[in-house]
Amino acid sequence: MNKNTIPKSIEWIGGLDGYALLIDQTYLPDELKMIECRDVQTMWNAIERLSIRGAPAIGIAAAMGLVLGVRDDHSDQREPFTQHLHQVCDYLASSRPTAVNLCWALKRMRSCAESIDTDDVRTIKLALLEEAKCIRDEDAAMCRSIGQHALHLIKPGMGVLTHCNAGGLATAEFGTALAPMYTAHQQGLAFRVYTDETRPLLQGSRLTAWELMQAGIDVTVICDNMAGVLMREGKIDLVITGADRIAANGDVANKIGTYSLAILARAHDIPFYVAAPSSTFDLSLADGSQIPIEERSSDEIRCGMGRVTAPANVSFYNPAFDVTPADLIMGIITEHGLIQPVLREAITENLLVS
Amino acid sequence: MNKNTIPKSIEWIGGLDGYALLIDQTYLPDELKMIECRDVQTMWNAIERLSIRGAPAIGIAAAMGLVLGVRDDHSDQREPFTQHLHQVCDYLASSRPTAVNLCWALKRMRSCAESIDTDDVRTIKLALLEEAKCIRDEDAAMCRSIGQHALHLIKPGMGVLTHCNAGGLATAEFGTALAPMYTAHQQGLAFRVYTDETRPLLQGSRLTAWELMQAGIDVTVICDNMAGVLMREGKIDLVITGADRIAANGDVANKIGTYSLAILARAHDIPFYVAAPSSTFDLSLADGSQIPIEERSSDEIRCGMGRVTAPANVSFYNPAFDVTPADLIMGIITEHGLIQPVLREAITENLLVS
Repeated sequence: MNKNTIPKSIEWIGGLDGYALLIDQTYLPDELKMIECRDVQTMWNAIERLSIRGAPAIGIAAAMGLVLGVRDDHSDQREPFTQHLHQVCDYLASSRPTAVNLCWALKRMRSCAESIDTDDVRTIKLALLEEAKCIRDEDAAMCRSIGQHALHLIKPGMGVLTHCNAGGLATAEFGTALAPMYTAHQQGLAFRVYTDETRPLLQGSRLTAWELMQAGIDVTVICDNMAGVLMREGKIDLVITGADRIAANGDVANKIGTYSLAILARAHDIPFYVAAPSSTFDLSLADGSQIPIEERSSDEIRCGMGRVTAPANVSFYNPAFDVTPADLIMGIITEHGLIQPVLREAITENLLVS
Repeated sequence: MNKNTIPKSIEWIGGLDGYALLIDQTYLPDELKMIECRDVQTMWNAIERLSIRGAPAIGIAAAMGLVLGVRDDHSDQREPFTQHLHQVCDYLASSRPTAVNLCWALKRMRSCAESIDTDDVRTIKLALLEEAKCIRDEDAAMCRSIGQHALHLIKPGMGVLTHCNAGGLATAEFGTALAPMYTAHQQGLAFRVYTDETRPLLQGSRLTAWELMQAGIDVTVICDNMAGVLMREGKIDLVITGADRIAANGDVANKIGTYSLAILARAHDIPFYVAAPSSTFDLSLADGSQIPIEERSSDEIRCGMGRVTAPANVSFYNPAFDVTPADLIMGIITEHGLIQPVLREAITENLLVS
């Protein structure tokens, strides 16, 4: 990969007989290893093994996986083809059962197939490939749009802190929280990014640091517990994180540690922003207290990095996410624009643009 | 080691022909491995390799190391014995050049030798052994005293958060921040301790969790970035940390991450206390801005846990300590009592007790 390249997490190469090319993120940051997915099993494994991760990227992977799963179907009639398509959907859905975007993408692919009024199976296959590419392109456009809407937040010489990986690797490209940074960098702005390493799974040091370096952006890794002192030292002017789910009132569920950052930012009068596609909002949830928080295996803390770092029988608490209340958030950037201040009405208005 | 035992970091076994027995902390929490130091080289290595660490424990180790270094001296005259003693002091001082307690203990041992009015070398050797044991016993008493003075802070059912390891392993026994917990536990109080794992070197998960478990105290390990959400969930009622250095106005330098905890505690109205021996105060420093902060190797973050977790050429920021301003600290507990509120005059008064 050339210097100053924003990495593409997943692409389709060629036509219907082509393949999906994706970065195997399990080898990062040590090694840039690509996977050429030429059959659905390979894609299923890639999703299951977390070779590709991040909600939007998983959706794209599932859509492309579906194309791989049905393109060699020899039916010349619609009915058996559709049955096979449903089987492939079920199979792909089992690769990461809790990933919402995976189901969303597969549903969209099924709707696409259903909406085509033809008995020619090859025409349906071609339409599915176009739909998969379209899902990817729409995601890329959405990220670029977030980047544009948040561009004004980044000023020359700033220090910008981010957490976890809401970057190009988690999306088609550009990412959400990192999109304004890529956009600003492409416009020639000089600034510095600090990334929390983000325990327990270290997506910040493994992934965010890696992809920003590929793009030639000045990036410094810190441990999560150093953010406060960096703020005190005046090194941070802006915090931008992604979001996993946003309630109707603007409360944001995101990677564990986000809430602490928001409190620290408030204590130091540093603006705290969240960047996320409008699909992240779940208006059925009145506020953040209704967002269920996944608690994950204690092994992620105890021996997540190749070495046992805590006693065998000790207790652990390992919530994967936390909820940051809306009043700690200066603004939320979606592909439709900036929601600021973060209020229920402003959120509804932003989402209505779509 | 039996259940419900507070581990002893270092002890002297037997008389002048005995040995120092210490826990090799580099094997924790996997394995409890003891080192029998029967010569000064073994002790030098133990200090240099961080088999024993924590300011007070290093001081005790140096004093016992000095006994080991001179006990086989065959001089029957004072002058050559004294010369040899000075050589051993210089040798031990080189094991961890920046450890203040190491120099302090060696100086005290030299003063002890000088103060004895005898030409009998064996008498001096015996006095040195007594002095080394005395340094250990004084430290143990100091820790117990901190435990007593802070006991009232811990109430049944409480959740107490600590950071890094200011425990028995860092001192003769009981520790500083952990002393009130051991004291409360011995009095039959039931409470829960949460310990930050404390990146980058994980002293919280490796050492604090281990020693509290040995004592039968209910302990839960969290990642550093989880403290905020624990506070929000009402799981934390009290924070107690140790200190590396305290300025005349009460500003506290301690392990990186302490400052963030203090801010988070303030935001959640949770009392934040510091426990430290009076020797931690440096009244020559008007405030925390005068405390120099050591920046350590980036490898501690990049590959500190057996696996490379960040890109090879990325920048790191790795301050080992941070400074928590006095106004975020509810009280400081020394062996002389509780300083609360943390004000310059109250500090001077507390230290004058000694």
